[in-house]
Amino acid sequence: MLNQRKPIKVNEAIERVLNHTSIGNIEYVSLEESYGRFLGDDLIADHHVPPFDRSPYDGFAVRAMDTNDASRNTPITLEVVGEIGAGSVFGGVVDKGQAVRIMTGAQIPEGCDAVVMLELVKEIKEETKSFIQLKRSFESGDNISFSGEDTKKGEVLASEGTYINPGIVALLATFGYKQVPVSCKPKIGIIATGSELLDVDEELQPGKIRNSNAFMVYSQIIRAGGEPIYFGQFSDEFDTCFEQVKKALEQVDFLITTGGVSVGDYDYLPAIYEKLSANVMFNKVGMRPGSVTTVAEIDGQLLFGLSGNPSACYVGFELFTRPIIRTYLHAYHPALKKETAILGANFPKPNPFDRFVRGHLSFENGKLIATPVGLDKSNVVSSLGSANVLINLPGGTRGYEQGMDVSVILLEDQEGTTLEQFLSSGGHTKRRARYDK
Amino acid sequence: MLNQRKPIKVNEAIERVLNHTSIGNIEYVSLEESYGRFLGDDLIADHHVPPFDRSPYDGFAVRAMDTNDASRNTPITLEVVGEIGAGSVFGGVVDKGQAVRIMTGAQIPEGCDAVVMLELVKEIKEETKSFIQLKRSFESGDNISFSGEDTKKGEVLASEGTYINPGIVALLATFGYKQVPVSCKPKIGIIATGSELLDVDEELQPGKIRNSNAFMVYSQIIRAGGEPIYFGQFSDEFDTCFEQVKKALEQVDFLITTGGVSVGDYDYLPAIYEKLSANVMFNKVGMRPGSVTTVAEIDGQLLFGLSGNPSACYVGFELFTRPIIRTYLHAYHPALKKETAILGANFPKPNPFDRFVRGHLSFENGKLIATPVGLDKSNVVSSLGSANVLINLPGGTRGYEQGMDVSVILLEDQEGTTLEQFLSSGGHTKRRARYDK
Repeated sequence: MLNQRKPIKVNEAIERVLNHTSIGNIEYVSLEESYGRFLGDDLIADHHVPPFDRSPYDGFAVRAMDTNDASRNTPITLEVVGEIGAGSVFGGVVDKGQAVRIMTGAQIPEGCDAVVMLELVKEIKEETKSFIQLKRSFESGDNISFSGEDTKKGEVLASEGTYINPGIVALLATFGYKQVPVSCKPKIGIIATGSELLDVDEELQPGKIRNSNAFMVYSQIIRAGGEPIYFGQFSDEFDTCFEQVKKALEQVDFLITTGGVSVGDYDYLPAIYEKLSANVMFNKVGMRPGSVTTVAEIDGQLLFGLSGNPSACYVGFELFTRPIIRTYLHAYHPALKKETAILGANFPKPNPFDRFVRGHLSFENGKLIATPVGLDKSNVVSSLGSANVLINLPGGTRGYEQGMDVSVILLEDQEGTTLEQFLSSGGHTKRRARYDK
Repeated sequence: MLNQRKPIKVNEAIERVLNHTSIGNIEYVSLEESYGRFLGDDLIADHHVPPFDRSPYDGFAVRAMDTNDASRNTPITLEVVGEIGAGSVFGGVVDKGQAVRIMTGAQIPEGCDAVVMLELVKEIKEETKSFIQLKRSFESGDNISFSGEDTKKGEVLASEGTYINPGIVALLATFGYKQVPVSCKPKIGIIATGSELLDVDEELQPGKIRNSNAFMVYSQIIRAGGEPIYFGQFSDEFDTCFEQVKKALEQVDFLITTGGVSVGDYDYLPAIYEKLSANVMFNKVGMRPGSVTTVAEIDGQLLFGLSGNPSACYVGFELFTRPIIRTYLHAYHPALKKETAILGANFPKPNPFDRFVRGHLSFENGKLIATPVGLDKSNVVSSLGSANVLINLPGGTRGYEQGMDVSVILLEDQEGTTLEQFLSSGGHTKRRARYDK
């Protein structure tokens, strides 16, 4: 089976995969469980914010017109006729010459149109009455937070597909979302292939390595917002493998296999795709690592055949699987953010194909600096731990020197970008800007 | 209780709190559950990587000396005496004039010291034997991944306290961590106070608002790595409140209250601290929002009295509670990262105190741009959803113009920084660098 494969460009491969997106259902979870999920519907204000004219300070609610003549030399005196704690409401109407003690957040009583801060008054207690003295005038509306000045009833405060961070949780609470509509997580199966693979708890044996890809992809799925299901390792026997894939497909929304997609004699997946009558969108991509990445589709269900080598597997997931997961989650920014950074170290290798180098992004004097981590051999795992970007060096370029501009794909960012933005950016990596400290 | 409070500087307040850190125990979780936790111990390589000399390609393992005389015009022929799939081992010793078919990742057989890639040979099959023809020579070591060249046995690959991302998960799997030592999550209680607060599922009532702080802080705790426990809202009655706090303290590592720390007549917390004989480290901080933030300590247990207004509550948590949580999790970078960014819009208000403005960080041509979000009134919640940084404007500065350098505190970053780094940075915000596109 040493058949020839025709590589396609990375962007073309991504576009082909994203022609087969699907969007998941929504479900309701409690507000406490909503953090880290994605909004399944627009978040809408069910009332004005503030819901009523309220005081932003502890102080006294007054009628501004009563203060017109107040000055340092001619202070005026108002009678304090009541007090309002936050959450309570003043019963009557405040009349000429009167004021009401008011707490932060409390509703402005009827008749009043300004608030005087506590520290600006002198309080005077008499036997049964109490008064305040003011030494300056106030305008109508001074120190009042007006109903609706922050948010109007009916306003969309966050769109469907937004990642729910603590600020969004605050909005959900404010607008009465005891139960929150969130996007259902796609169930994503993982099958590891490779007769060289040991289980994590097995002792090392000559010629074998422990299976790390399955667990790495497991957590990449969680990070992307999906629900991983690990089906274990492939059998060594073709018919059993075929049945494993068929059964797994029935239980999941998408299926990921790691390994088994090379042209090596022991790689079953191409034959399995054929027997499943799967539509193989591509089985070779002009990129390093991950050239043997395969994506296939059967009746709209996607199979991601990721490479068996850890870096290639990692990159293949982030480029092809992640945007599919985010689209399923209703995200309007399903792609990872791609930004420009300054290369922090030389990368002398030429790039006959688009290259994705694991890198660490840091900031220096307000600029983004991306530095390749580790040796960047495709079978190296030790550098993956500190990687938070993929440095994207376009195919056809020579080696890069420290200080040049490069494109970086942000791995930990939750905001993302549109697919169009992702695919169109990256050209600026050929510009050779020097890095001046 | 309109007592005077003496404000202290933000950095001084943070230092006081961080004099009372505690470090949690460790527990073991399965590899699948380890993503997003913090390493409770150093991650150590239990073997070399690669564990044996192996082939990075599909090809043929050869003895380099046999190829010395090979050239385009004088190809040499080697007999293929076996094949090694990944995970299997060649039994014998490869002799003069022999080669072995080898798969990616398989162990180099004894006697061989180079690998020839598949595409560089011509295969010749005879009845019972097969041969390869080579048209160039190879050096000893060519195309071999040597044992230990990536990682040496015993090497620390990630330190105790590291956030477990998918790359770290891959390392854990590779080195046999079926069970992963992780830092125990601190249990953090939340009590909401404020008689103006409605439950999230209650209809709005005049003068009242729904309780959003408790749920916001709940998710901030999760983001920081802790385990939130919500005890509900305070009673309106002092003795009951006191008992609520006392009981909650027995069940948690740290306790957060929201609201009730102002000098308003209805704010019970100062009296509760007194009755508990708590050591109040400070009850006023020279910052906006959040000036009434209080932190107290009883027998080493911390009580965070966060403000009742949403922005102040949010900021108080991130500045004071988060580093305590991260320290408990063994993190060596417990503070949030503070970086320099270019201000993306005017902020004309003067800053009599250190100000923390919710902002949105974006990137433009390799530079960090931070733009204030929303109105930034302290009682505004609608802008919190899009905030991913706090823009830190030092006290004593005038208004800031678009294009100036400012300090930003990154809210979604998992890497963090040291406390020293956090406290020492930020001075550059007074430098007035223009933003040149």
